[in-house]
Amino acid sequence: MSKQQFYLGIDMGGTHIKIAIVDSSCNIVEETVLDTDIKATPIDVIKSIISKASEMKNYSKVKSIGIGMAGDINCFDGSVRFSPNLPKWKNIALKKIIENLTKKKTIVDNDANTASIGAFWLDAKGKAENLVCVTLGTGVGGGFILDKKLYRGSSCSAGEIGHITIDPCGDVCKCGNRGCVETFIGAKYISKYAARYLKKNKSELINKLTNGDYSKVTPRILYLAAKKGDKAAISIWKYVGEKLGILFAGILNFINPDVIVLCGGVSHAGKYLIDPARREMKSRAFASAVKNCSIVVSKYTNKLGVVGAAMLPKQ
Amino acid sequence: MSKQQFYLGIDMGGTHIKIAIVDSSCNIVEETVLDTDIKATPIDVIKSIISKASEMKNYSKVKSIGIGMAGDINCFDGSVRFSPNLPKWKNIALKKIIENLTKKKTIVDNDANTASIGAFWLDAKGKAENLVCVTLGTGVGGGFILDKKLYRGSSCSAGEIGHITIDPCGDVCKCGNRGCVETFIGAKYISKYAARYLKKNKSELINKLTNGDYSKVTPRILYLAAKKGDKAAISIWKYVGEKLGILFAGILNFINPDVIVLCGGVSHAGKYLIDPARREMKSRAFASAVKNCSIVVSKYTNKLGVVGAAMLPKQ
Repeated sequence: MSKQQFYLGIDMGGTHIKIAIVDSSCNIVEETVLDTDIKATPIDVIKSIISKASEMKNYSKVKSIGIGMAGDINCFDGSVRFSPNLPKWKNIALKKIIENLTKKKTIVDNDANTASIGAFWLDAKGKAENLVCVTLGTGVGGGFILDKKLYRGSSCSAGEIGHITIDPCGDVCKCGNRGCVETFIGAKYISKYAARYLKKNKSELINKLTNGDYSKVTPRILYLAAKKGDKAAISIWKYVGEKLGILFAGILNFINPDVIVLCGGVSHAGKYLIDPARREMKSRAFASAVKNCSIVVSKYTNKLGVVGAAMLPKQ
Repeated sequence: MSKQQFYLGIDMGGTHIKIAIVDSSCNIVEETVLDTDIKATPIDVIKSIISKASEMKNYSKVKSIGIGMAGDINCFDGSVRFSPNLPKWKNIALKKIIENLTKKKTIVDNDANTASIGAFWLDAKGKAENLVCVTLGTGVGGGFILDKKLYRGSSCSAGEIGHITIDPCGDVCKCGNRGCVETFIGAKYISKYAARYLKKNKSELINKLTNGDYSKVTPRILYLAAKKGDKAAISIWKYVGEKLGILFAGILNFINPDVIVLCGGVSHAGKYLIDPARREMKSRAFASAVKNCSIVVSKYTNKLGVVGAAMLPKQ
């Protein structure tokens, strides 16, 4: 028992902060959660996380701490340049502060990278050679495990796959670019497209599910409707899936991975999204790359971030 | 002197086969060239290469052999699945044949990968952390040196950056996809676009350089005309550069390299191509990735392939 190594993982979300103690086989031994106080100062948030963590039964056995959060993270010095979910967090030396408070080795990275580490250990059981994790939610993010190691790029911003251009004259994206793939498959853009589509192609079921207001349609409603055979919903997912397929083809032609793991809320649409994406990808990517790549929806979407964060030191 | 290590590099082109002996500092010690006999059987071509190489003064000191060639190369077993320049080469166990003939360790890879190794050692002096080499010629290819090592992907087809989609409804590419970046910036497509453009926007100079037949315009003619201040040529390069800039933005958002090295015939257009590409890239890519990446035209474009091939064993 004394030889068992434990790792603390912290997944800093905009609503909750997940904290887990993970063993070296990636099992969660103990976990807890905090509400995210976006109004508190960063130092107060950090102190309450450490206080919560140190109440955990196995905390004294924790060897290292890993943290994943959304935003522009300097993974080299472990500082947070800015985080869209936490407006008060600007140039916070997160790694340094935590190491001072806990005396434990700490690593900080962005949440797409921690999700990809989680996908590598949980979905791929550590066996993929080259894995791309695609996060489908409000934003579209990516993390790369290449030759079995996390690839971060020269300024920790590799894997910004949501922002490759698939239509040079398309909508302006929040990143400043035009026609990013995120402007087609980000959750809000899916809702926007669906509302437009439904004005021309009515659906009784979606009308009911949105209380008669199509502007309230969400990816979740579209998924529920598709599951019941709603033609409009299936057709909307086909459109979204085809755009995702263009992204898949780009990933295959660039990275040539053996597996793409999808996670995040929008990935719950499952086959309604993946089947058209796979068809589009096959028609666009190199055959040998297609043959060598499997596409899976993560079975661990809610754990990826916290387990991946805990496993950061193993990278 | 006896401790000096030599490496043989072979760059198999469609017209010439370059052979060089390279020292461990990437200096070419000795070099020679063969015409490519595309009608000969692969085994005869291989034998004449080995015969030519073994006549070289330093051949006996050669430790290993590296070969780069265009096409679908299985870099794991060193076989050539097919090569567009050499139609008789189908499923040729190149590595095995050469090792049998020479008793020297042999590595085979595609020419975009060998060019990227050449760019890493010659242009970046082995100092780049993450380097992307972009080959601009008839085709548009790419090779990645990530964390200082050649990255090949799961089936040796990573780096097919010429085939990312930048216009989903664009022209059909030879790869089967639509609107690949190659259909905008591949040499033939540049000529095709220029001929169309020149019908509407006459240029006296280009008219003269093409003997009155715009369909004969080439990237080289466009470069010469631009250098003399020809407005049509500059405007055509601006269009091409902007498409290249979309590719650069994709490379930055995916890979976040510290340097992009351009090589190949079209890269000779220099600033006429690079300046608009850089502007477009800046408007599309993440600022931190832009800040951390320099873009250079290789100073060694004719040597990259053969030196990179020689250096394959160092990867």
